[in-house]
Amino acid sequence: MLKRQPLVVEVLRGPAVESVHNVMVAVVNELGQLLHGWGNPSFGTFPRSAIKMLQALPLIESGAADKFGLDDKMIALACASHRGEKEHLAVLSQWAEKVGIAESLLSCGPHLPYNESSAHDFIRRNQKPNAFCNNCAGKHEAMITTCLHLGEDPHGYANYEHAAQKRLRNILTETMKVDHSKVPHAVDGCGIPTYAVPLQAIASGMSIFVNSKAPVLRKGACQRIIKAVIGNPFYIAGSDDFATAVIEKTQGRAIIKGGAEGVYAGFLPEKKMAFAVKTADGAGRAAQLATAQVLLQLGGMTVEEAKALSKFTMPIITNWKGEPVGKLRIANDQ
Amino acid sequence: MLKRQPLVVEVLRGPAVESVHNVMVAVVNELGQLLHGWGNPSFGTFPRSAIKMLQALPLIESGAADKFGLDDKMIALACASHRGEKEHLAVLSQWAEKVGIAESLLSCGPHLPYNESSAHDFIRRNQKPNAFCNNCAGKHEAMITTCLHLGEDPHGYANYEHAAQKRLRNILTETMKVDHSKVPHAVDGCGIPTYAVPLQAIASGMSIFVNSKAPVLRKGACQRIIKAVIGNPFYIAGSDDFATAVIEKTQGRAIIKGGAEGVYAGFLPEKKMAFAVKTADGAGRAAQLATAQVLLQLGGMTVEEAKALSKFTMPIITNWKGEPVGKLRIANDQ
Repeated sequence: MLKRQPLVVEVLRGPAVESVHNVMVAVVNELGQLLHGWGNPSFGTFPRSAIKMLQALPLIESGAADKFGLDDKMIALACASHRGEKEHLAVLSQWAEKVGIAESLLSCGPHLPYNESSAHDFIRRNQKPNAFCNNCAGKHEAMITTCLHLGEDPHGYANYEHAAQKRLRNILTETMKVDHSKVPHAVDGCGIPTYAVPLQAIASGMSIFVNSKAPVLRKGACQRIIKAVIGNPFYIAGSDDFATAVIEKTQGRAIIKGGAEGVYAGFLPEKKMAFAVKTADGAGRAAQLATAQVLLQLGGMTVEEAKALSKFTMPIITNWKGEPVGKLRIANDQ
Repeated sequence: MLKRQPLVVEVLRGPAVESVHNVMVAVVNELGQLLHGWGNPSFGTFPRSAIKMLQALPLIESGAADKFGLDDKMIALACASHRGEKEHLAVLSQWAEKVGIAESLLSCGPHLPYNESSAHDFIRRNQKPNAFCNNCAGKHEAMITTCLHLGEDPHGYANYEHAAQKRLRNILTETMKVDHSKVPHAVDGCGIPTYAVPLQAIASGMSIFVNSKAPVLRKGACQRIIKAVIGNPFYIAGSDDFATAVIEKTQGRAIIKGGAEGVYAGFLPEKKMAFAVKTADGAGRAAQLATAQVLLQLGGMTVEEAKALSKFTMPIITNWKGEPVGKLRIANDQ
């Protein structure tokens, strides 16, 4: 079932195709072996935020989460691209207080909340966003928390050579089976290294969450992260987010996470499959639609669930008056 | 010099290509004949806002602009995707008052100003945006003004069958040499019809602005629009806009205008050439870079001017702290 052509996502305006996206997909089994997909499974891909669940493993495996008594919302936030809603910011602050993390230690940089009404609240109050508002703040708190637990100086934790990043390279090397000290690396939006790897390696990495043969410590850490995410989908993104909506609606039969430049990664606990998606041109709108298609084809989401999430799975384009004028669709392989 | 391959715009993060865009380009002479380009010049393209200068022709040719004493800023706004800065809104209001246009007559729908600080001002004041804030408001005032001058009821002016839209179809049919009553049409973001035509037809349409053999009335209207735009580049878009910056920097040797879904169109008065650009996937970031490349290759912009506009022509990708982490570049045909 490996398709040589990428998934084609068409953007229609009225009756005519206005724009076209090519999306690559790799699907793997619980051992990370390629099962099927669309397009080139070796497409060099920066996973960006789509693998935050993998990046959260050291927080659990090191014992840091237990040591500091982090709750499931905090663990979900470690895996999150949070949308800056007040509940997200409240839990991030509780976590920082609990561990003793000054905002100035976070190196992710500030941005206004992704959630529009939260952003407007900041603007109305003339309040500058701080590093906790950064969608990656939970991942950064997790890295700092782990350093503190292990007795490492957390300053400079975002640098390529810092112990925190070496630890992440090791985790990614083990789970993706690609030596992360030898692949191209660059700086992610939040300042930490991100690594370009074949798309199927990202899927392989995510398969650790469904791998019944994983080592006990890792399996336990994966289970704890899965429990936290399924129990708190709002905390891995927020209102009006596709990943949050899918995890909620499927009650954890599909767990997905998006990343910048058109990436999604995820896994289906019951089906013991994992996948990764990348739009060649970086468009998130196409990656989202392709991910919905993958979930439908793999049986991670029912047709009824997809219909209930039609805002994301069958998106309509509207004009400024809110009237429908177009739509997105998968052009092949329906 | 017709290239069979599209222009390839690469998005680099560190040393690795993260995303790739394919961009089609058609370049024509003053008679609208295809000279050269990249990729498929027949690529079916909705020109969107890139042809607002063509859509402004009836305002001048009908005598409406003279009748109501519109100034050059107003004529530039008729061709604009304005960014909602206070100067734009002030001139649009003056125009509406002069002609007697109620805000409720505009059918473009409201949106917050594209300009960030203007948008924040609206939010801070708890002020809802109105139809004048819509980037297309000037085009809509132009259509209504023309109707009123010609004694037509402007109500419903955005509908396909209204005289205002028939008039625009005639103008587009004449200038693009494509029968607009026979091509696919859809609804633009601002509610009026937009038509899917071959990319080179869009370039042909724009060539009317450099056509020394155009009929006298049309030539005069084109000259008046060109004068208004060159004299007021801020009013065709606004601060921090590529089109405004190019027209200013080249002092009108290159006149360009962007449209949604990765479209640019423009012309070079001295070189008597016109062009149209479309990113296959709709990405504006790639259309902008390709347009800069086209202007450089056609001699509409010097290397020094391109360097002075490096923010647009050699864009850098930064992380949330503002540090450079990547860039966009043209991968072929440098």
